[in-house]
Amino acid sequence: SSLRDRLPVQAPTLFEAKAAKNLTFEDIAKQLGRNEVAVAAIFYGQAQTTSEDAEKLADILGVDKSKLGMQLAGYPFRGQVMDMPPKEPLIYRLYEIVQNYGYAYKAILNEKFGDGIMSAISFSTKVEKETDKDGNNWAIITLRGKWLPFSRF
Amino acid sequence: SSLRDRLPVQAPTLFEAKAAKNLTFEDIAKQLGRNEVAVAAIFYGQAQTTSEDAEKLADILGVDKSKLGMQLAGYPFRGQVMDMPPKEPLIYRLYEIVQNYGYAYKAILNEKFGDGIMSAISFSTKVEKETDKDGNNWAIITLRGKWLPFSRF
Amino acid sequence: SSLRDRLPVQAPTLFEAKAAKNLTFEDIAKQLGRNEVAVAAIFYGQAQTTSEDAEKLADILGVDKSKLGMQLAGYPFRGQVMDMPPKEPLIYRLYEIVQNYGYAYKAILNEKFGDGIMSAISFSTKVEKETDKDGNNWAIITLRGKWLPFSRF
Amino acid sequence: SSLRDRLPVQAPTLFEAKAAKNLTFEDIAKQLGRNEVAVAAIFYGQAQTTSEDAEKLADILGVDKSKLGMQLAGYPFRGQVMDMPPKEPLIYRLYEIVQNYGYAYKAILNEKFGDGIMSAISFSTKVEKETDKDGNNWAIITLRGKWLPFSRF
Amino acid sequence: SSLRDRLPVQAPTLFEAKAAKNLTFEDIAKQLGRNEVAVAAIFYGQAQTTSEDAEKLADILGVDKSKLGMQLAGYPFRGQVMDMPPKEPLIYRLYEIVQNYGYAYKAILNEKFGDGIMSAISFSTKVEKETDKDGNNWAIITLRGKWLPFSRF
Amino acid sequence: SSLRDRLPVQAPTLFEAKAAKNLTFEDIAKQLGRNEVAVAAIFYGQAQTTSEDAEKLADILGVDKSKLGMQLAGYPFRGQVMDMPPKEPLIYRLYEIVQNYGYAYKAILNEKFGDGIMSAISFSTKVEKETDKDGNNWAIITLRGKWLPFSRF
Amino acid sequence: SSLRDRLPVQAPTLFEAKAAKNLTFEDIAKQLGRNEVAVAAIFYGQAQTTSEDAEKLADILGVDKSKLGMQLAGYPFRGQVMDMPPKEPLIYRLYEIVQNYGYAYKAILNEKFGDGIMSAISFSTKVEKETDKDGNNWAIITLRGKWLPFSRF
Amino acid sequence: SSLRDRLPVQAPTLFEAKAAKNLTFEDIAKQLGRNEVAVAAIFYGQAQTTSEDAEKLADILGVDKSKLGMQLAGYPFRGQVMDMPPKEPLIYRLYEIVQNYGYAYKAILNEKFGDGIMSAISFSTKVEKETDKDGNNWAIITLRGKWLPFSRF
Amino acid sequence: SSLRDRLPVQAPTLFEAKAAKNLTFEDIAKQLGRNEVAVAAIFYGQAQTTSEDAEKLADILGVDKSKLGMQLAGYPFRGQVMDMPPKEPLIYRLYEIVQNYGYAYKAILNEKFGDGIMSAISFSTKVEKETDKDGNNWAIITLRGKWLPFSRF
Amino acid sequence: SSLRDRLPVQAPTLFEAKAAKNLTFEDIAKQLGRNEVAVAAIFYGQAQTTSEDAEKLADILGVDKSKLGMQLAGYPFRGQVMDMPPKEPLIYRLYEIVQNYGYAYKAILNEKFGDGIMSAISFSTKVEKETDKDGNNWAIITLRGKWLPFSRF
Repeated sequence: SSLRDRLPVQAPTLFEAKAAKNLTFEDIAKQLGRNEVAVAAIFYGQAQTTSEDAEKLADILGVDKSKLGMQLAGYPFRGQVMDMPPKEPLIYRLYEIVQNYGYAYKAILNEKFGDGIMSAISFSTKVEKETDKDGNNWAIITLRGKWLPFSRF
Repeated sequence: SSLRDRLPVQAPTLFEAKAAKNLTFEDIAKQLGRNEVAVAAIFYGQAQTTSEDAEKLADILGVDKSKLGMQLAGYPFRGQVMDMPPKEPLIYRLYEIVQNYGYAYKAILNEKFGDGIMSAISFSTKVEKETDKDGNNWAIITLRGKWLPFSRF
Repeated sequence: SSLRDRLPVQAPTLFEAKAAKNLTFEDIAKQLGRNEVAVAAIFYGQAQTTSEDAEKLADILGVDKSKLGMQLAGYPFRGQVMDMPPKEPLIYRLYEIVQNYGYAYKAILNEKFGDGIMSAISFSTKVEKETDKDGNNWAIITLRGKWLPFSRF
Repeated sequence: SSLRDRLPVQAPTLFEAKAAKNLTFEDIAKQLGRNEVAVAAIFYGQAQTTSEDAEKLADILGVDKSKLGMQLAGYPFRGQVMDMPPKEPLIYRLYEIVQNYGYAYKAILNEKFGDGIMSAISFSTKVEKETDKDGNNWAIITLRGKWLPFSRF
Repeated sequence: SSLRDRLPVQAPTLFEAKAAKNLTFEDIAKQLGRNEVAVAAIFYGQAQTTSEDAEKLADILGVDKSKLGMQLAGYPFRGQVMDMPPKEPLIYRLYEIVQNYGYAYKAILNEKFGDGIMSAISFSTKVEKETDKDGNNWAIITLRGKWLPFSRF
Repeated sequence: SSLRDRLPVQAPTLFEAKAAKNLTFEDIAKQLGRNEVAVAAIFYGQAQTTSEDAEKLADILGVDKSKLGMQLAGYPFRGQVMDMPPKEPLIYRLYEIVQNYGYAYKAILNEKFGDGIMSAISFSTKVEKETDKDGNNWAIITLRGKWLPFSRF
Repeated sequence: SSLRDRLPVQAPTLFEAKAAKNLTFEDIAKQLGRNEVAVAAIFYGQAQTTSEDAEKLADILGVDKSKLGMQLAGYPFRGQVMDMPPKEPLIYRLYEIVQNYGYAYKAILNEKFGDGIMSAISFSTKVEKETDKDGNNWAIITLRGKWLPFSRF
Repeated sequence: SSLRDRLPVQAPTLFEAKAAKNLTFEDIAKQLGRNEVAVAAIFYGQAQTTSEDAEKLADILGVDKSKLGMQLAGYPFRGQVMDMPPKEPLIYRLYEIVQNYGYAYKAILNEKFGDGIMSAISFSTKVEKETDKDGNNWAIITLRGKWLPFSRF
Repeated sequence: SSLRDRLPVQAPTLFEAKAAKNLTFEDIAKQLGRNEVAVAAIFYGQAQTTSEDAEKLADILGVDKSKLGMQLAGYPFRGQVMDMPPKEPLIYRLYEIVQNYGYAYKAILNEKFGDGIMSAISFSTKVEKETDKDGNNWAIITLRGKWLPFSRF
Repeated sequence: SSLRDRLPVQAPTLFEAKAAKNLTFEDIAKQLGRNEVAVAAIFYGQAQTTSEDAEKLADILGVDKSKLGMQLAGYPFRGQVMDMPPKEPLIYRLYEIVQNYGYAYKAILNEKFGDGIMSAISFSTKVEKETDKDGNNWAIITLRGKWLPFSRF
């Protein structure tokens, strides 16, 4: 199914208001007190909002509070938006990093932490921009997850 | 096919020597002057070595230089080791991050940099360990890629 | 690839010794001090052993300690044994339970715990047998996982 | 296709009434005399209702009896709601348990019961919440299925 | 993987002995006291034998009892032999019957029995040959499974 | 796509009229002079009707003859309704029988008939209900297909 | 798996003898009294031989009769050689014809014959070469199958 | 997606007019001066029409010329109508012929023509009906494609 | 999902205006100062426009500037239009070139440039037509991408 | 299956001799009088050699003529080497170009040539290296295929 069909109900409300107000995710994030990746994730239905978040968002974007509140109520159905493997080139590059370096990450993480995983739930992430002395831009994505050792049973 | 079948020819040589010498990837990385993720990637056939790297590696691991040199000659066939979606829980968590946050990353990266991608080739990565005040361990994976704008043509 | 090809190196050693000694997983589990599901998972390369576990296992099964120790060293590559969807009728029934009741579990867990997941890592499981008054046997599988709330960021 | 398209006809009626009445699945389950997982499964079209259930549900939720009766008449088309592998992280964890421990469960169940399967039809399940002394929450999912031996023919 | 790789260990022993003795499955079935489909299923690792079956089979086929006994010990890993959708035309026709008449069977079975399934475990099957008055041959496959109603919980 | 989208145009007309008239497939089949499985197959667009069938059906169900006639005109596009592997547990059991016993059926059919297939076109099927002395219900599905030998050329 | 692994046991015997004797399929077909496509299909394990065929083939190719006889005994497992969609460009073109013209063929065949199929079992095929007046070569593949009407039941 | 969704815009116009005028594809083909398979392919959006064809078709079918002209303008998006493997039994038989005889066709075509392919573009096809002396009907499908040798470079 | 569903919002606006104005992509490209492939890519939502491009396009095609501006604002979701493997014969040929010559390209590019990739982002492409002395037309597609060496880390 | 398993029989002979002689594909191509991409394609079993090519290759590489002649005899089974989608980053970029620009290429090619395809058989390709004034390297891949109009029939 098309991306449009897979977007959550709040997506059109949020994206249209953001475009109308000419706000960046960074602007919204600052006012909301959350990270800009989390804000974009809310737009795409991949992160939860508290009812306080929902109210603030409605204020920031100038949309109807009760309508947005209802759209954001409940628990996200994460992962529905993306068809894997990703066809979008930007997102594919991240997928390719997992494909190419996955076993290397596992080897290093096991060596450093033992038998377990880096949580994707007790987890945060951020995106930064760096410009080197030659004027090249670099994107830096940081993934920070709690280490969960496998239980012994 | 099984993981064993998909490993490159150098993998048994390298893993056995590493186990025999009781070295960590971090140890090898320090002696080789490369990042430990890159070293693990070499073991899994996902990163290239210069002939100098190959010689040093042979020294560090105490394996036959010409044999290892021949095994590491040529260009890696990246990606062959991994079947997607990854079944290994640790690696799946990274895949899940792409699945859940992929569109959010795209939104933020486009907002910060314009139309383009973060390169997975002009790219480096590292893994760090952090222990918080409650004694919990956190894994931090940093992805750093050059920003490539789409050419206008 | 066939199941045989996907089994880890220790599998033939362990299964043959178990058959020769005519031991059940329950017998081994009691002597090892672990749950019988964990023991079977070790045989299939899905759970880690400490070096102490490995030594005890060698004793219990009467196999060479250093050989088994080497086979069990390192970190398991979980998930490699199973092709999904499972073709084995017994295992398919578990898969079907996830397929049929997955959204119902999510609804109930979110209602009881909020936004998060039941960990499959900080996790234990057991299998019990019950015979009802009509002589019918019932299998009871218990899944117990730590609740991990999604981090707010 | 999107989750919305795959939901059964009764889903919007039921979910909206539940939200309007601010009832939990647990509340409804108590009044209906069924398990809360079964109630959520009814909402998602994965479990059947008797006509008595349908009437009671209409009462509990304050919706039109004949409309709901017609929506719930007939036999469920189970499994249509879920695309496998599940993308939702919470549901994926259950899938991962099957992927990782499937053969171990088979080994233990065969050992305890002989050649057969645990039924997913003569089957019930429940979800419980446990808080340990450190204040951590644990989810416990119990699967209870009749043992069916393979017929000899 | 090829069919050969997916066959169980007993398959070459059994098929070669059957060819050498020039026996049909029907011959073996009569001597063994089981249905010929079950006998073929044993050859392909899809049905279990008791130790008495294994001994009788060894007698009938003139193979080493202890070798065959060991090959047939344990529980079958059913379903591994077949890649779906089946490429073999004969087997594909059965698959096509499920594809084309699946919903019709469900409608009729629900109408006759209520909400449940026909078991494939408490199940037997047989194949018969019929020649009509014009000399045409007809194959008749009978599937007989216990009806299992969904538990109410 | 959802089951609803894949149903043929006649399906809503027929199912609604059947429900309104409170008729079983068996009732309709008797009046129409066809087997009940064939009748259900017509509802799901998997079997053809003659124009006489269409008229009789309209009579039996009390629907507009010319409308139903047009909906049933033309040739069925068989197989479109089912996504394989089937997710519906009842239908999956039939699929599982093919997966588990496919090669056994082939072995027995080849032995009895030579090189060829059982036709799924020159084919009929029926469903019967049997209750054993312990009160258990059994479903019996009979598949009867013409044997087609491979042409020699 | 690779093509080599999927070839039947007789393939190396037959192809090597054909190459050694420098015979074309056409040569062999003439001597064997069968069509050249059928002969190639025998080499690839897609068509059955009578024991007379097997003897003649052994004569024509100069191979050991009893060895070839045993390799060709039993019933072919058709379809195992090909992975679909075909990657080989020549074979893909045939696949593409089915993909592009499949519904058109159905429309025309239904119009000419009614509701049914063209058998692929009561079936023969041949390949011809034609050179037009401009010196272009044309391949003509003829498919001839018995028309099987769907049974009315 | 369903077949209906994948049909091109002209399909409803054409099929309804054909039904209303009670014309066969053969009738239309004769009047249009094209093969009936090509005509059906136009209905399904798998073949191009010249503007002259479009006008003639509008005449033959009695539909609005400019509307049909616009619907048929542009270049067909071939292949969109069919989901592979085909579920329709008639079309599956053609697919099965490719699956079973693909390598045999390649062997014979390479032997007759050298290294190359039979074009599916410089290509025509036709369907014929033959009745043998026993009254059996046979369908004959002829595929005629230009032979294209691989370029040497 | 169908191609229509996957097209971006601007597609109908642009294609209809192009048809109404009877312009080729080449005409538009010349006026816009971009390559015709890039122009077609804009129509299909695979390339970005500057706001200046959007205004010019609106002028060239005679459509409402603010409507088109809004439709073209934001960043393209590349890759959504195509289902892989491509079913369209023209596009499949390009896919087949990658399938057949992929490893050969890699071998030559590694030999000429070292370890790295040809960028598909710092990339341009064009299509040319050539007619040889025999009157045959040839299509020439040029792919020009920046060489990106893998970073050493 | 792994890349190693999918390589043709000649691959080890050729690659080892090339490494031993320290020759580039360009060197070999010049001596053989063919394009370097074609030479690499021969190594990977994707292009045919004449017997003269095979002899020359044996000379150039210093390998046994009759052995290489036999390995290169017969017709290539193209496409077997590559699993799609390609996991190798360099090859994936080419795949991505088809995915992103496929419909744009079709639009432009149809506009320039009419209804047809660019042949991948009557086809040649080459790779060039360009260094711009800033010292950046660019790879240029040229695809040149004969235009084949769809036959009218």
